[in-house]
Amino acid sequence: MLKKTIKITMLFDFYGSLLTDKQQEIIKSYFFNDLSLSEIGANIGISRQGVYDHLHRSEASLKDYEAKLGLLKKYNRIRAKINDLEKIMTDKGILIEDKNEDLRKKMESIKSIL
Amino acid sequence: MLKKTIKITMLFDFYGSLLTDKQQEIIKSYFFNDLSLSEIGANIGISRQGVYDHLHRSEASLKDYEAKLGLLKKYNRIRAKINDLEKIMTDKGILIEDKNEDLRKKMESIKSIL
Repeated sequence: MLKKTIKITMLFDFYGSLLTDKQQEIIKSYFFNDLSLSEIGANIGISRQGVYDHLHRSEASLKDYEAKLGLLKKYNRIRAKINDLEKIMTDKGILIEDKNEDLRKKMESIKSIL
Repeated sequence: MLKKTIKITMLFDFYGSLLTDKQQEIIKSYFFNDLSLSEIGANIGISRQGVYDHLHRSEASLKDYEAKLGLLKKYNRIRAKINDLEKIMTDKGILIEDKNEDLRKKMESIKSIL
């Protein structure tokens, strides 16, 4: 469940703005604010089942966007390789040398946007 | 015009699979295979104006996806920073040292997927 939640929240970070406002609100309430289906239903005036259906459809949409675009997968590959690069530089002591502060800062700057 | 074409083709690389099959075919014919509006129209059996309308709507859709998702912009920022990092390492001679072949290979591997 936790792993599934992480996958959905990552997909939502990428593609969430393509969902309707209501779908976005429900996903945020459920996955980020940890409200129950019943609580969300009460908040927006629909049934618990209605909330479930919205969640189910939103999840399917997010997965469909990733199946078509594959940008999350691509992004994760880039991030993994950047981490590898940083590890090699760290292991070689390159990143801790005073003269390489510019390299260290650039690496931090890359990681901050990944 | 060239700059605009590059922008559209980059957006198409990112979001093209969200367009309809016909929209994708017209964009490929026009921007990648350099066919004229009339030639495309003749190929798929619609008017020159029809092709133009499809192109116009496709372009608007691609821009709308980028306005909502901003993934091309994010990707370009990452790529620019990776290039900066490579330049710093090259200027310092780090990448040409024999003992750093692993770093050089990892950097090539990162660039190959960007």
